[in-house]
Amino acid sequence: MVAKEYVTYNQVHKLCQEAAPRILSQFRPQLIIAIGGGGFVPARILRSFLKKSGSPNIPIQAIGLSLYEELSTEDSSKPTEGQSPSDVEKLGAKVKRTQWLDFNSLGDMHNLVGKRILIVDEVDDTRTTLEYAVKELTKDVETARQKLGDLGGATVFSIFVLHNKQKEKKGVLSQELLEDGRYLAARTVPDIWICYPWEATDIDEHDRLAACQQHC
Amino acid sequence: MVAKEYVTYNQVHKLCQEAAPRILSQFRPQLIIAIGGGGFVPARILRSFLKKSGSPNIPIQAIGLSLYEELSTEDSSKPTEGQSPSDVEKLGAKVKRTQWLDFNSLGDMHNLVGKRILIVDEVDDTRTTLEYAVKELTKDVETARQKLGDLGGATVFSIFVLHNKQKEKKGVLSQELLEDGRYLAARTVPDIWICYPWEATDIDEHDRLAACQQHC
Repeated sequence: MVAKEYVTYNQVHKLCQEAAPRILSQFRPQLIIAIGGGGFVPARILRSFLKKSGSPNIPIQAIGLSLYEELSTEDSSKPTEGQSPSDVEKLGAKVKRTQWLDFNSLGDMHNLVGKRILIVDEVDDTRTTLEYAVKELTKDVETARQKLGDLGGATVFSIFVLHNKQKEKKGVLSQELLEDGRYLAARTVPDIWICYPWEATDIDEHDRLAACQQHC
Repeated sequence: MVAKEYVTYNQVHKLCQEAAPRILSQFRPQLIIAIGGGGFVPARILRSFLKKSGSPNIPIQAIGLSLYEELSTEDSSKPTEGQSPSDVEKLGAKVKRTQWLDFNSLGDMHNLVGKRILIVDEVDDTRTTLEYAVKELTKDVETARQKLGDLGGATVFSIFVLHNKQKEKKGVLSQELLEDGRYLAARTVPDIWICYPWEATDIDEHDRLAACQQHC
């Protein structure tokens, strides 16, 4: 039996709060990219803690990524238009885009070139989704940079997840990103089953189990 | 002084849970559109309660809408490309798109035609954002319908919000939508200041105040 860890909403809230000073001082993000659905809640909470008084909120763009293996057959018939199947295959797993950036609305951020971008997800499990996100976003940046005639500074990606599972990863993040300290997991945990509150059917029981695992 | 109401994460969770049976039986959504950032948390929770065993998750697409009046000057210089300024003006307030649907990734949903779509936000305050969302999405559907040569059934929008404030609304929703019961607010409240947990800087104090307002 795989061990389970129950995480309450308030714990998620505090993990974001705890991470915010480092994100603000080191990553200084100008754009948050939330990987949905799991990244939606931490991204929204983080935005509150990253807001500086007098400044506007850091914009959030949502992208939706699903591993094919997590999808039912109904949903996984073929790669989505616009994806490069060879790249998807290289990742060692099939990732499906259910939503990507909206370049029309990004305004002056549309090119992403020279920006500091924070990618947010709830969990780094096999790392496949994170590798896919960084690689595909990097491609978009390169395309934009070529259009701009190689103008604009470097685009810097950083990553925040609530939990990083200690396990063999299928996905790979660049040594540069890792060594620069641009990867932040609020908690590093064994390869357990993490029960997030937004998946709970009985939230009171969920909280009771979370309290119990700390005190019982 | 405007009265404040503190809402805990678990209360938000239960409001979504309570609404889910009606959403499933009456709205039967095939796509959730979350209005970010406020709609992110309820949309993610709702997805759990709307999932039927054996079926894939209902896909979520995020859109980002901000009222200009809520934005700092830095952020509100001009309408975003692709918006129709006349329409925005008609709404009686300026709405800025920070993200819109990704029609590439929507796959067989790309045309939206003939689908049941649930729009999710945290609060219906002036109704401006909701009016904007329904109107602009309806336009997209009509454009898609024309491309398809008028094929496909009716697209049906429904709305879920956690709280509807009883106040004079600047935005208007169609009588048809309202009379069909396709508007669901988990709670209808006076024109108070609702403190959502994802905006709390001290979540324990937030919860204490929420408990106090019920019991003290």
